Amino acid sequence: MLKRSRSIDLTQVSEWQEGDLRRFQDYLVAEEPLEIRVGGAPLTVTMRTPGHDLELAAGFLFTEGLIRKREQVASLTEGTAERPEAAGNLVQVELAGTEFERERMQRNFFAASSCGICGKASIDAVRVRGIPPPNPEFNFDPDLLCTLPDKLRAAQTIFGRTGGLHAAGLFNAGGELIAVREDVGRHNAVDKIVGWALLEGRLPLAQCALMVSGRGGFEIIQKALVAGIPLVASVSAPSGLAVRLARELGLTLVGFLRGRRFLIYSGEQRLAPARVTAGVGP
Amino acid sequence: MLKRSRSIDLTQVSEWQEGDLRRFQDYLVAEEPLEIRVGGAPLTVTMRTPGHDLELAAGFLFTEGLIRKREQVASLTEGTAERPEAAGNLVQVELAGTEFERERMQRNFFAASSCGICGKASIDAVRVRGIPPPNPEFNFDPDLLCTLPDKLRAAQTIFGRTGGLHAAGLFNAGGELIAVREDVGRHNAVDKIVGWALLEGRLPLAQCALMVSGRGGFEIIQKALVAGIPLVASVSAPSGLAVRLARELGLTLVGFLRGRRFLIYSGEQRLAPARVTAGVGP
Repeated sequence: MLKRSRSIDLTQVSEWQEGDLRRFQDYLVAEEPLEIRVGGAPLTVTMRTPGHDLELAAGFLFTEGLIRKREQVASLTEGTAERPEAAGNLVQVELAGTEFERERMQRNFFAASSCGICGKASIDAVRVRGIPPPNPEFNFDPDLLCTLPDKLRAAQTIFGRTGGLHAAGLFNAGGELIAVREDVGRHNAVDKIVGWALLEGRLPLAQCALMVSGRGGFEIIQKALVAGIPLVASVSAPSGLAVRLARELGLTLVGFLRGRRFLIYSGEQRLAPARVTAGVGP
Repeated sequence: MLKRSRSIDLTQVSEWQEGDLRRFQDYLVAEEPLEIRVGGAPLTVTMRTPGHDLELAAGFLFTEGLIRKREQVASLTEGTAERPEAAGNLVQVELAGTEFERERMQRNFFAASSCGICGKASIDAVRVRGIPPPNPEFNFDPDLLCTLPDKLRAAQTIFGRTGGLHAAGLFNAGGELIAVREDVGRHNAVDKIVGWALLEGRLPLAQCALMVSGRGGFEIIQKALVAGIPLVASVSAPSGLAVRLARELGLTLVGFLRGRRFLIYSGEQRLAPARVTAGVGP
């Protein structure tokens, strides 16, 4: 039986309220390093919440451009017999077919350097990877969109007990939740979703909307694009560069999705037509 | 005049509300890559919100353990004449005295690998850096602590317009705000604070409390410890590993600081004594 790291820790805390102190046991989200090894050599270490680690590793390799399809993964295993202390926090990947280009990783990390450090270069670096624009036929009902935050929250099993997690939820065009993953890291939650889809043979996710609990930064949009997701929504604000990337590659980006209101930053045509009134300020 | 990247972008957005669509100009937080070069060679590229870039570079080098004091930085400059397109998103660092150990960076990143991948190893990696326990004499009034979230929010100049930023605020024992920094990345906001303190000759921050807007993860606590900060507070949840690190190294860690209530995960003795009542659950 392989040792597994827990997703939740239980610990003693003190609550201060109006000058009174009370002690009790409370749940905390677990955070542990995960090492991803490819062909026996360490590739990266990420701080993550244990759980769905194979999906995280597969999703990371895919969204970072190190693999392009499921078939390139010959095996994906947790832990290793030689280092029992690492079991539970180690994923070993063996790749099939072509030689793994280790240096490509480094090149990706430094892609911006080679062509001038600026937002435009970051967007160009995504573009040169040959990612096609996401499904132009995908549409999503705005009324349905407003129901996603509650559905995502209801599905967050760890967050409910710890309050300390980011979540990513994948929904179909009918607004049904297909998959949800949680992690202390926003990027990891998205990588776990994409890794799950890769391993299940469901890529590209051309008929899906992705809802994230945190902010919509550049890298979240990049990962969604690599997975072919046409719509990303969040309850919070995107960054300027995330909006530029979404616009240039044709992804629908929604922010501040709260109650019966949201902002559309890109790809408005995928949301069913609504009455347009003129406006002058926020 | 050096070209500078903006902290805020202005863009056209559409607001959907109850089926009506309205268009207006809105502010977005800027996100651009920053390359940090040491001795002419690239060290890292981080996605950050432009502004306080020299502090960010200095803080990053310090909290990651690449430098230990202000005097090791011979010069810190923005941009470079040879690559005008990179100006605004590049910081050049020249170090004085001893040769810069480039491989030490890599060793730090993979510190966990060398001694077993687990939370304990991550904590040990901080411990072996010889970081002393933060100031045991520092105390903070719990009533004053409850005022920090509002003070931090009031000082967030970018967040007010964009809603998309993490903030880190440094307070003295009297509850006065000394410095505030904002960034799309939580770690960057803390690095900007620590870099500011380093460049101002204010380290260690033995008489200060740090308030962060996001979650209290392992790396936030690690950076606070390196800067000698005895108290870290957040409005949200810490991770289990962050709590273990805070306890092992003696930092006071507060979470869920909202209104007149907060949870104490570690270092309760730094908060003025309060009435203790027994409790059995949250």
